[in-house]
Amino acid sequence: MIKIIRSVESMKKLSDGFREKGLSIGFVPTMGYLHDGHLSLVKEAKRQNDLVVVSIFVNPTQFGPREDLKKYPRDLKRDLKILSKYKVDMVFHPSAGEMYPDVYKTCIEVKGLSDKLCGASRPGHFKGVTTIVAKLFNIVKPDTAYFGEKDYQQQVIIKKMVKDLNMGVKIVSMPTIREKDGLAMSSRNKYLNKDERAKALVINKALKFAKVLVKSGVKSSARIRAAMTKLMRTAKYLKIDYVSICDPETLDEKRTVKGKTLIATAVYVGRTRLVDNIVIK
Amino acid sequence: MIKIIRSVESMKKLSDGFREKGLSIGFVPTMGYLHDGHLSLVKEAKRQNDLVVVSIFVNPTQFGPREDLKKYPRDLKRDLKILSKYKVDMVFHPSAGEMYPDVYKTCIEVKGLSDKLCGASRPGHFKGVTTIVAKLFNIVKPDTAYFGEKDYQQQVIIKKMVKDLNMGVKIVSMPTIREKDGLAMSSRNKYLNKDERAKALVINKALKFAKVLVKSGVKSSARIRAAMTKLMRTAKYLKIDYVSICDPETLDEKRTVKGKTLIATAVYVGRTRLVDNIVIK
Repeated sequence: MIKIIRSVESMKKLSDGFREKGLSIGFVPTMGYLHDGHLSLVKEAKRQNDLVVVSIFVNPTQFGPREDLKKYPRDLKRDLKILSKYKVDMVFHPSAGEMYPDVYKTCIEVKGLSDKLCGASRPGHFKGVTTIVAKLFNIVKPDTAYFGEKDYQQQVIIKKMVKDLNMGVKIVSMPTIREKDGLAMSSRNKYLNKDERAKALVINKALKFAKVLVKSGVKSSARIRAAMTKLMRTAKYLKIDYVSICDPETLDEKRTVKGKTLIATAVYVGRTRLVDNIVIK
Repeated sequence: MIKIIRSVESMKKLSDGFREKGLSIGFVPTMGYLHDGHLSLVKEAKRQNDLVVVSIFVNPTQFGPREDLKKYPRDLKRDLKILSKYKVDMVFHPSAGEMYPDVYKTCIEVKGLSDKLCGASRPGHFKGVTTIVAKLFNIVKPDTAYFGEKDYQQQVIIKKMVKDLNMGVKIVSMPTIREKDGLAMSSRNKYLNKDERAKALVINKALKFAKVLVKSGVKSSARIRAAMTKLMRTAKYLKIDYVSICDPETLDEKRTVKGKTLIATAVYVGRTRLVDNIVIK
């Protein structure tokens, strides 16, 4: 049976015990409602470590006041069943009160990286992410933690935080897992109705189109962005938040596509905000 | 011979080794130029732990642009000699380049507590302190860290950071150590000329006077502050930065002295900024 830990102190004690025994801990932080993207992280964590801890915590501080905290999909029973199959050792599933027990004052901010791309339209989001990830790292004490590249900016920011604060955790990022038709897997895909689900396909198509353009010699970011925007606008009810063509480490916008380049986009399909990206080498 | 470690990686490896062996690490972070205040922390750390690490690092990020970073007193040779006597096991003494190797983007902030008292006149100071302390904790991995109550606000903020971020470090704060005539020990006392040194005594006198007033029934913070200010103004060349009468945990100003109360003050004696405080129970 999979072990469910709900208290910070219990989780800390267990982790301390494992570390004292010299067992390596792999950690996959999630907000639950697991899909194959999460599970690719779990598989890699299993492969590389003696023990695997998955956290399931819908972190309120990374949602904006008008965002989808309340309706974010949750299904603990289903998640536990899946994680049991994958022989995950422990699930850390604290309440919001357990994670933020009193007037909460401390936050971690990675400046320069957190106000761009998704950070521009979700102010405070990455501050919420870095703070909860640091808390989870201090509680779970992993040797290695696993993040998906679907949230590309997130893993860039977390890697920078870990480096800057000398945290003793190795960060592994894993490729985006997609549905057969190319849509990037996301817990938020659940929000899409049939019509929206069909329209959402254009996001990945636009990224692939950008790649084709680059391979065919188009280097101007402005031209690529214009072409992607034009393609995505063919889909009704689709509102583009941003298309960024940038350096994959600094997230600084590039005027021309030279060297390793991240093309990332966020799009509203109906009321659902979806992100996707591609890295061009 | 005392062991001096200058690289982050070496310090991390040593700490990991000690932890694996189950040895407890006591940690005293300092900016060097040690006095009996620091040494009281070292003594307590020795008493409570298997091993003691003292860091000596004048952290640039906690100094404002017009502050005394450059002239801050340094004497490594003397510090090492003293620490050898106290049988400290290791001194972690990194360069600024070792601690901040590249474009530094991550910072930790304890909101609400960092903009009051000293934070009001030293914007960014406590952000520098919390960030370097978190870095040092991640590198040295102490079981317990020791801070002096002379910098009362600092240890309040660090305790809050540790709690909020679930850091696995116990924070011990120790009473202010004073010269025979009452002046709180500080590395910055070195800046004082003979005349200023004499005038600086009024700071502790004002705090003691406040205590006498409270014991004699005066409860109004305004009256106590006025009396302290009047007393300190008798000393020429002395400029009061603030007198705070506040809650020792939240640092919220109190209108009347009820319950445990912190009376803290910062004063410029000539160009030297000195702090001192007293806690009334």
